[in-house]
Amino acid sequence: MKYVHGYNQLENIRLQDQASTLVELLHSDTCYPAGSRILEAGCGVGAQTITLARNSPHAHITSLDISEQSLAKAKANIDNAGITNVDFQQGDVFALPFGPEAFDHIFVCFVLEHLVCPVEALHCLKTVLKVGGTITAVEGDHGSAYFHPDSKSANKAIQCQVELQKRAGGNAKIGRELYPLLTAAEFGSVHVSPRMVYVDSSKPHLVEGFTKNTFTAMIEGVRESSIKAGLLDEKTFDTGIKDLYRTTEKDGVFCYTFFKATATKPNNGHQISAKKDRKPR
Amino acid sequence: MKYVHGYNQLENIRLQDQASTLVELLHSDTCYPAGSRILEAGCGVGAQTITLARNSPHAHITSLDISEQSLAKAKANIDNAGITNVDFQQGDVFALPFGPEAFDHIFVCFVLEHLVCPVEALHCLKTVLKVGGTITAVEGDHGSAYFHPDSKSANKAIQCQVELQKRAGGNAKIGRELYPLLTAAEFGSVHVSPRMVYVDSSKPHLVEGFTKNTFTAMIEGVRESSIKAGLLDEKTFDTGIKDLYRTTEKDGVFCYTFFKATATKPNNGHQISAKKDRKPR
Repeated sequence: MKYVHGYNQLENIRLQDQASTLVELLHSDTCYPAGSRILEAGCGVGAQTITLARNSPHAHITSLDISEQSLAKAKANIDNAGITNVDFQQGDVFALPFGPEAFDHIFVCFVLEHLVCPVEALHCLKTVLKVGGTITAVEGDHGSAYFHPDSKSANKAIQCQVELQKRAGGNAKIGRELYPLLTAAEFGSVHVSPRMVYVDSSKPHLVEGFTKNTFTAMIEGVRESSIKAGLLDEKTFDTGIKDLYRTTEKDGVFCYTFFKATATKPNNGHQISAKKDRKPR
Repeated sequence: MKYVHGYNQLENIRLQDQASTLVELLHSDTCYPAGSRILEAGCGVGAQTITLARNSPHAHITSLDISEQSLAKAKANIDNAGITNVDFQQGDVFALPFGPEAFDHIFVCFVLEHLVCPVEALHCLKTVLKVGGTITAVEGDHGSAYFHPDSKSANKAIQCQVELQKRAGGNAKIGRELYPLLTAAEFGSVHVSPRMVYVDSSKPHLVEGFTKNTFTAMIEGVRESSIKAGLLDEKTFDTGIKDLYRTTEKDGVFCYTFFKATATKPNNGHQISAKKDRKPR
């Protein structure tokens, strides 16, 4: 057995275990150099933009979204936060209003999950990225949710969200696919870092902030559309929600994993980094 | 939003991502002080004993198992490895052949999953642990396995293993329950650290060593008993296994999470560490 990092890993794991917020867990290691040009593709109302801008105060960030309405909200949020290194641009990821290699780095968070053709979107983004520049993609995966006490009703309610997103052309279980997606889009040096949110009652901020107010609230939010679509009956859905709240009690546990991938644009658009030979089975 | 560790987390996550073996991921942060007395409860054939002993070369380890046959194999493995800080003892976790507070620390790995009464086992172990000493428990969770491409047949084959272990009185999804189990056994300062194994084709050693030779091999191992028990038909089971191997191809991904918990024996056997107040929902 090979030990690469030995006992230093103790401290590393301990610190990761203690990440106290989702923002810290997902974004604290995204920090761009001074003067670099960053594209945030699909910024929405700017939920990640403030963190992105604060983590890289001397980079220049262009935050793009297709919705003028979202952009107006994002701009207001950024202005209220006193942040000055972000400009906003309306536009479509599939028809980007930028020249080739206009950006040093690209950041795309909770966007690919909504797209019918995520690989095509990644190809489009690659054209505006300079050679050697990085793309960072962050996505959740609703198939990674499990909990104690386990509950068939809760799993069925979650499955409603997955099915509704699928019918809308998206993929709520895209997190696990970031490696094949970025590889298919001919990015190189693809590295995926899972970020698991583990919640028990010793972490009351995550019980409230994640299990209740993020995940369960999101599933509750599809109650009407799930019932209307005939995906689940009212009683089972409501039992499922009750069971999700049950996991926030003293002896409950809730687990969910986000996936964060980084990759680079290779020298030749069609050349990806060499992989180590693998023996066929 | 609160940043506790800030950018140092970059390095922490990077190093954890790069853990190259399962042993490193699970055990590299278990290291006991010189002169301390350690009980390894349920050592089996010594799969973890060599790692435990090498990580704590100046601690004295007592490895207990109920099976004389397993102990003989464990002893041979330890002798072959030239390790001298381990002695072996035959005995039952529920009737431990040691006096009260005989050990400074306890280590129990892949044992609780097989027990009908894991909380009772933890209570028994606590009696031989000195006040202030730690227990370290490591367990897998078969409900944490997910993969790309997803496969209903593969999930059904995995479910066979879960069901067979349940019928044998065990719990193949016990990993997520370590916090409530240790709390119920009145340990204090319970801390659970999930250890996710993320495997894509950029990690050929984990594709071979974990997805194929550990997880899929284990599921293949219950083929006959699953079919005999009528849990699944041959065709679906075999499709499931084929689909698990499919996740080891170039565009495949496989995820599994182990849970590692540490806790301490409080001053008063009935006093557990104070929990922060939580607001009721």
